[in-house]
Amino acid sequence: MSASARLAGALGLAWLLATSARAAEPLPSWKDGPAKQAIVAFVSRVTTPGSPDFVPPAARVAVFDNDGTLWSEQPLYFQLAFAIDRVKALAPQHPEWKTTQPFQAVLEDDREALAAAGEHGIVELVMASHAGMTTDEFAAIVREWLAKARHPRFERPYTELVFQPMLELLAWLRANEFRTWIVSGGGVEFLRVFAEQVYGIPPEQVVGSSIRTRFELRDGRPVLVRLPEIAFVDDKVGKPVGIHQFIGRRPIAAFGNSDGDLQMLQWTTGAEGPRFGLLVHHTDAKREWAYDRQSPFGRLDAALGEAGERGWTVVDMKRDWKVVFPFQRDGRR
Amino acid sequence: MSASARLAGALGLAWLLATSARAAEPLPSWKDGPAKQAIVAFVSRVTTPGSPDFVPPAARVAVFDNDGTLWSEQPLYFQLAFAIDRVKALAPQHPEWKTTQPFQAVLEDDREALAAAGEHGIVELVMASHAGMTTDEFAAIVREWLAKARHPRFERPYTELVFQPMLELLAWLRANEFRTWIVSGGGVEFLRVFAEQVYGIPPEQVVGSSIRTRFELRDGRPVLVRLPEIAFVDDKVGKPVGIHQFIGRRPIAAFGNSDGDLQMLQWTTGAEGPRFGLLVHHTDAKREWAYDRQSPFGRLDAALGEAGERGWTVVDMKRDWKVVFPFQRDGRR
Repeated sequence: MSASARLAGALGLAWLLATSARAAEPLPSWKDGPAKQAIVAFVSRVTTPGSPDFVPPAARVAVFDNDGTLWSEQPLYFQLAFAIDRVKALAPQHPEWKTTQPFQAVLEDDREALAAAGEHGIVELVMASHAGMTTDEFAAIVREWLAKARHPRFERPYTELVFQPMLELLAWLRANEFRTWIVSGGGVEFLRVFAEQVYGIPPEQVVGSSIRTRFELRDGRPVLVRLPEIAFVDDKVGKPVGIHQFIGRRPIAAFGNSDGDLQMLQWTTGAEGPRFGLLVHHTDAKREWAYDRQSPFGRLDAALGEAGERGWTVVDMKRDWKVVFPFQRDGRR
Repeated sequence: MSASARLAGALGLAWLLATSARAAEPLPSWKDGPAKQAIVAFVSRVTTPGSPDFVPPAARVAVFDNDGTLWSEQPLYFQLAFAIDRVKALAPQHPEWKTTQPFQAVLEDDREALAAAGEHGIVELVMASHAGMTTDEFAAIVREWLAKARHPRFERPYTELVFQPMLELLAWLRANEFRTWIVSGGGVEFLRVFAEQVYGIPPEQVVGSSIRTRFELRDGRPVLVRLPEIAFVDDKVGKPVGIHQFIGRRPIAAFGNSDGDLQMLQWTTGAEGPRFGLLVHHTDAKREWAYDRQSPFGRLDAALGEAGERGWTVVDMKRDWKVVFPFQRDGRR
């Protein structure tokens, strides 16, 4: 059985249930509070023919951040966990890493030294682990990692740490003729490996950060080689730029969870016509995590401060979600 | 009546006819020769359930160059005509252009001096005419130009110089559950203004060259400002890069007309499974233009040389197309 088939098997159940649920009651994992009511009211306004706020299906573009919005981002971004595992796997070919930061920190599991390496250190890890191979080779490496790696706290594949209420929301929006896009600070080629199976979002509806690639003919066969140079950072002010460049339409709904999503929500909701912005606030240390202003990953501060004035809906994870992860349903834990 | 409504009116007829034609006979403006037969045979192979070459609809991605493939590109790229008209309109605010190349050449209609300014000169014209405004303002400027400008030879709006056989091909592929994308060296924001009305291709299925944009809040309202810096050149080796970054899937069919499309055709057809590549060869000086190896715009040399060995279909415009432009049908000229 291929790695991708195993991945599909592991995730098939959650996905099927999320899809079939919409026929009965929309958003069954959402408690019937103000957040769910705001979502349902917005979708009703824009999809009711004859309503002054009716939006034709072609313009029903909804954009979703990924880390912390569709899946978890603690204790560190999952793609950074991939980079760390990859650096460890490549270490035998790089003896110099034993004494070079940030690689030494990774190999010695030295959290403090890794934190001290800062953003520059992270870029170095990403380049060492994400470049130097063809695009096809990279996709295979990610696929294999997703099949084998386990989250340290939940001891499950990372792709099971997706938010059941958000899976239901994605499916329900699509049932209402929205097109759902991911707009993530994460790498576009990392995301595309699992976005279709896990979220039902096809490759061409994923916007993300990217490194440069170079076209080459190898024995007459074309390949794209991944280079250790950043092409585009799809975060903060980069998100509206990425949306405009890839989608070319102004979304009518945006879903995020951190200050990295602030400008995406401003861009989406700061235009004429019906608009919807939503922030997921991580308030549930027991079922997931509780964090906001002080978190190194998924810091939520300025965006939360603007939510009231700009009319954005804030989800209180603990209060608004009946379950967080698919595997927590039906009393499972 | 708005500029866009006028544009739609002018183009509505061609589009409707191209769409309704498919029910009767596919590709009515194509003569029944080897090019049409190759297209029809390929579409039949990939869409017949149970065929060993069957391709599921989600993977039926077809990419089209624009200049010289979907519309004409003589006597110069239409977007360059826009840049020239724009420089003339802006000249009163730039008295220094009277004595500065390449602007002086434009203002004096001096073809030789303009050609002498070369690629660097073109970039200067593009930056002066395409940057410094918001994305919304730029789209309005392009829309207005398309409504008013007339092609020097045919004295019609540029958007009427589209190829009737290609309109039929786009519509027929979509009727066969292909998704049709533009992958153009032209500017993505220029193309998106008319691609949906003229070709039925929505903004999110247009890949093109781009300049950088910057997110700004103006009195709390978000805008994207166009900057005079190139972000991405979607031409030659850039086309497979753009396809991979925007679409994230390998196309199964690619349509071009020049050496700028060589790598796009290599990338599309140089993979396993059923693949189709096609080059439009401009051979019809009477109805359109005849040019290839020596042309400054749309030069076709290396790609034509590889067509045989790589199995690409070459359209001989004079031989294979019953009409070129929609306005030449039914004996009209």
